[in-house]
Amino acid sequence: MKALVYHGQDHFGIVERPKPQVTAATDAVVKLSKTTICGTDLHILKGDVPSVQHGRILGHEGLGTIESVGSGVSSFKLGDRVIISCITACGACHYCWRGMPSHCTSGGWILGNTIDGTQAEYVRIPHADTSLHHIPSATDTAVDEDALVMISDILPTALECGTMNGRITPGASVAVVGAGPVGLAAVLTAQLYSPVLVIVIDRDPARLAVAQRLGATHIIHAGADGDVVRRVLEITDGRGVDTAIEAVGIAQTFELCQDLIGVGGTIANVGVHGGKADLHLEKLWDRNVAITTRLVDAVTSPMLVELLAAGKLDAKALATHSFKFSDVEKAYAAFGDAGTSQALKVIINFD
Amino acid sequence: MKALVYHGQDHFGIVERPKPQVTAATDAVVKLSKTTICGTDLHILKGDVPSVQHGRILGHEGLGTIESVGSGVSSFKLGDRVIISCITACGACHYCWRGMPSHCTSGGWILGNTIDGTQAEYVRIPHADTSLHHIPSATDTAVDEDALVMISDILPTALECGTMNGRITPGASVAVVGAGPVGLAAVLTAQLYSPVLVIVIDRDPARLAVAQRLGATHIIHAGADGDVVRRVLEITDGRGVDTAIEAVGIAQTFELCQDLIGVGGTIANVGVHGGKADLHLEKLWDRNVAITTRLVDAVTSPMLVELLAAGKLDAKALATHSFKFSDVEKAYAAFGDAGTSQALKVIINFD
Amino acid sequence: MKALVYHGQDHFGIVERPKPQVTAATDAVVKLSKTTICGTDLHILKGDVPSVQHGRILGHEGLGTIESVGSGVSSFKLGDRVIISCITACGACHYCWRGMPSHCTSGGWILGNTIDGTQAEYVRIPHADTSLHHIPSATDTAVDEDALVMISDILPTALECGTMNGRITPGASVAVVGAGPVGLAAVLTAQLYSPVLVIVIDRDPARLAVAQRLGATHIIHAGADGDVVRRVLEITDGRGVDTAIEAVGIAQTFELCQDLIGVGGTIANVGVHGGKADLHLEKLWDRNVAITTRLVDAVTSPMLVELLAAGKLDAKALATHSFKFSDVEKAYAAFGDAGTSQALKVIINFD
Amino acid sequence: MKALVYHGQDHFGIVERPKPQVTAATDAVVKLSKTTICGTDLHILKGDVPSVQHGRILGHEGLGTIESVGSGVSSFKLGDRVIISCITACGACHYCWRGMPSHCTSGGWILGNTIDGTQAEYVRIPHADTSLHHIPSATDTAVDEDALVMISDILPTALECGTMNGRITPGASVAVVGAGPVGLAAVLTAQLYSPVLVIVIDRDPARLAVAQRLGATHIIHAGADGDVVRRVLEITDGRGVDTAIEAVGIAQTFELCQDLIGVGGTIANVGVHGGKADLHLEKLWDRNVAITTRLVDAVTSPMLVELLAAGKLDAKALATHSFKFSDVEKAYAAFGDAGTSQALKVIINFD
Repeated sequence: MKALVYHGQDHFGIVERPKPQVTAATDAVVKLSKTTICGTDLHILKGDVPSVQHGRILGHEGLGTIESVGSGVSSFKLGDRVIISCITACGACHYCWRGMPSHCTSGGWILGNTIDGTQAEYVRIPHADTSLHHIPSATDTAVDEDALVMISDILPTALECGTMNGRITPGASVAVVGAGPVGLAAVLTAQLYSPVLVIVIDRDPARLAVAQRLGATHIIHAGADGDVVRRVLEITDGRGVDTAIEAVGIAQTFELCQDLIGVGGTIANVGVHGGKADLHLEKLWDRNVAITTRLVDAVTSPMLVELLAAGKLDAKALATHSFKFSDVEKAYAAFGDAGTSQALKVIINFD
Repeated sequence: MKALVYHGQDHFGIVERPKPQVTAATDAVVKLSKTTICGTDLHILKGDVPSVQHGRILGHEGLGTIESVGSGVSSFKLGDRVIISCITACGACHYCWRGMPSHCTSGGWILGNTIDGTQAEYVRIPHADTSLHHIPSATDTAVDEDALVMISDILPTALECGTMNGRITPGASVAVVGAGPVGLAAVLTAQLYSPVLVIVIDRDPARLAVAQRLGATHIIHAGADGDVVRRVLEITDGRGVDTAIEAVGIAQTFELCQDLIGVGGTIANVGVHGGKADLHLEKLWDRNVAITTRLVDAVTSPMLVELLAAGKLDAKALATHSFKFSDVEKAYAAFGDAGTSQALKVIINFD
Repeated sequence: MKALVYHGQDHFGIVERPKPQVTAATDAVVKLSKTTICGTDLHILKGDVPSVQHGRILGHEGLGTIESVGSGVSSFKLGDRVIISCITACGACHYCWRGMPSHCTSGGWILGNTIDGTQAEYVRIPHADTSLHHIPSATDTAVDEDALVMISDILPTALECGTMNGRITPGASVAVVGAGPVGLAAVLTAQLYSPVLVIVIDRDPARLAVAQRLGATHIIHAGADGDVVRRVLEITDGRGVDTAIEAVGIAQTFELCQDLIGVGGTIANVGVHGGKADLHLEKLWDRNVAITTRLVDAVTSPMLVELLAAGKLDAKALATHSFKFSDVEKAYAAFGDAGTSQALKVIINFD
Repeated sequence: MKALVYHGQDHFGIVERPKPQVTAATDAVVKLSKTTICGTDLHILKGDVPSVQHGRILGHEGLGTIESVGSGVSSFKLGDRVIISCITACGACHYCWRGMPSHCTSGGWILGNTIDGTQAEYVRIPHADTSLHHIPSATDTAVDEDALVMISDILPTALECGTMNGRITPGASVAVVGAGPVGLAAVLTAQLYSPVLVIVIDRDPARLAVAQRLGATHIIHAGADGDVVRRVLEITDGRGVDTAIEAVGIAQTFELCQDLIGVGGTIANVGVHGGKADLHLEKLWDRNVAITTRLVDAVTSPMLVELLAAGKLDAKALATHSFKFSDVEKAYAAFGDAGTSQALKVIINFD
């Protein structure tokens, strides 16, 4: 089969590889129809993720068809259409029992990381029963699979790490710092709980325009619209926001969230951070705030399948570009240069 | 009447003052029976709390008898025995509606801060209906009022900011960093939810001995017992704790909590901080942790009255010393030099 | 002033009464601009509510302008525009501390019940600080006050007793049994949490058509569309619904909810019941269900003001008819004969 | 092997059966050390449980040693000491994803019901990874295994269906109606959350004496101590209880709970009901109560293992009698005639 393989910093390409086989009784092998690229894949290519060894097949998102299953798999059978979760869950370890498969002792984020991933014609999925999700049969696949592939990672990330950790409730005020794909997905999922203010802050006017189209009530062009903190305080009657979602992953934006958050509010960190930030406890110790972090657990995937099937989330809007798998390097180029391409998520289709 | 007044950094003493009067319809005046001293009072004396002006009567804790009430007070009448909450709540503002009287727009922490406080023979309490609590008639006052005065501040602080914010559940593991009075109160209140591990960390063996007496399952003498982090990981099978309660208020101990916390855990900040701390997001971003801060809201005071009346909390153990009000300066000396006096909370009795 | 007074079963009419005065320091007197009629008012007229004595001014809903305030009122002043809550809350009693002002020991539902109500030119409101809500200044009053008056009762009833008690979450399935005004308000408020199925069941096709316009995904005409239970099971893949909202108040509809509810679901009772119902524990004991009851506490009123100001709830759609106060008896006729008039809520305007 | 087999109403006995084998990749076979008898087993013998066919091996509780595992089992290996859960969970179906393995589509309560059970020398456990629990190695097995076997069913039943569904919080008042084994287990688990009142009601003074020893603050001898409702209202200052746990399973006791419950309280049904009860909605509709039902999901088993290992629950007190497996019929006799034998749970030991 053909697979996209990482050969070390800045080197990757399609190569021939043997088709994966079921090796454990709880495995399934999936033939991919669609995959996509995550910001984490770009970090891998930069050499920033030491757990990824040379020779690894990239990718942790995708959907396709069950090609074979081990004898211990009971929920899926040959030919089933499935969404692959970026998180592999055994369902039985200390962390899975506590609802945190992100830290599953024999799973978690392993696809395209410590085992071969989804940017290939086939992929082996361990613990298949608890790591795959059925595609609803009624769904018009021609239209909707570009949306459904967002359930692999970006939608549960936005919903669990941003919206739910951020405890968004009807009537709330929300600031989303960063209008990249995950920030925009957070704009979408936040609206499931009917906040009255969704303020999006970014440096890129094009992405802010998308945010507005997806439901932001206010956009702030950082660097051009004056003092961001003052602007947010104006919008919120001087109180600050109930929820601030950090969707960038640098100290500066995390620290901005501390200035935006109101009494009783929650800073929900979604960004992947490479360094520490200042935490201004001298200002926050008596403000009744919560700060949360989370690696997506993908426990909301069944709920997201329902919501997409019902048309409650315009996840399709995140899929801006499509490529054939043979052009996957072009897909990476478009995704990696989003400032020029205005790409959000890029869909990669297999034949 | 006699009152303890702050005259500026390091200067304070008992002076004569006019007895306070009801000035608003919702006021009550309370004749004090007992008061106590808070760590915050020591900060005021050091000049660290700029909101406290010269001439202010100190103190925000105490219990006593209703001396007079305004025409708008319906829950209390002349002669009622009451506990004074450190938090004054109007019950009607934006923050009171949301369960956060700590940020009440006409209340919050004002006693002994922006209005005269409880270290005096009488004190005026605004918004009396929502800022006082009845002393249960069945309580043996000779024995229990030293315990009941802990409901003014230290018990709801430990319960709300430590135990509840820390989401302690049956079977959980808890680390309490700092065995001062608030940390020890957190050891007591944590046990209301039946954790299996209560690990207390401090530099003072005498306070650790108290912690053990109050229910700590493990004590760690920081500086003497080797690497604190390694020790906690050993006790928790390498997982870290479910809840870390910061009860000191400096960057170093807050940062220690980040090393102790397990996946899915909560760092509940109780300490009063004067500066920032490092937040190691590069380590925590994917650990599913929460960090909480809170100024006590005192919304659990009715629950605490019930618990003390039922003998469910040995709050009396926190009251180590007693003084007459005429000796209040000696009480400050004992409380301020706890290393020598081994004082936790000092009770000050009025005639 | 003119007031609508209850004179005993089936007798009521406008009479002259003295304008009410502030009698307690925490009272306010409100000059009414708008009021409306509740199903409970019809029950009073039938003589079904023994707590209502002859001579009582009817009504517990309305909005208007502060005419005078007692000396203990701090949140409202002469001329403020306010919404009157159907629930009077002291903010300080056992039940108010626990978030249940519906059972306030000196409040609860008293307006138009044990004290004079809002179907009059003026009304005295006890505990004004915690029983009134400011009308947001930015709101276009010409258009929106008909919607804002729904915050007096029907919207918090639907939100608290139906939606919140029913624990509606994104992706959920909901059945609303009864498409009267409260059931329809429940259809509106349910959508704040993004359920995927909102199935409304009623005997009146006209009301079902309204339900559909307000967001019902499915309507079932009881009596005409065959077996209701079978139809709901078909829609829900045989599982039954996650939430069943009882909005009629008779045994038959409550028992229907027991047939509709799925494993793990919640039956949220909103209806006012005059008799017992059968509870089929032999069928439900192992189904992991919850059944909830609640008298509206009106604690969500501030949230509802925000939601209406932001256009998140089409509460205006509930106000189908308008009358002058001088025609209030015609308003009662229209409301009482909704089958003919197709009235939902009727707005009564004062000069 | 030897096994206790049901032969139809009132007929059962030990017979020889082939030792069970792993038949699915996710199975394990456990060699039993201990089992016990549940009230449900008595119902089966009476012929009340039609799903149990003649020839079925009885029992759904027990602990022992892993004898063999299928190729898809990863958490357990030959020789591991394990507790068997009464609930078999696939971990992957609609209900397992939602935390309700009691309704697992290929599991739930199947042991000793639709497949052979644990009252035999060996038992086959489907979905072993998610249906067994490790016995902590540090536990002193000589003393504690009689307690650990209570984790199979009675402790999670009491904790999940009674304590947690009943939302018991520190300071709360609790009534437990019925002091049989499950009611007494509810007395134990309730105390994990520090209620101040635990009132136990039963007709058997011997069981009430046990309740008192296990922590009941008040006992009421129904039939001898006068009006139960009046007595409970006296104890609770006229308010009724916050939580009423129904642990009998008949209409009369469920209806009693409706008289005991206070405003805002929860009736947590634990009893197995064979018929309907009257639900007095005319009295409860405005009382802000919740009624919950649940078949044990056994999701708290890991927490219970921690609590028992830490000595936080005196589960051993529930094990009053011990028998050899060869005397299992005597064990049934003692358990079935508890009035005479004063048996709570009877331990059955294998050689």
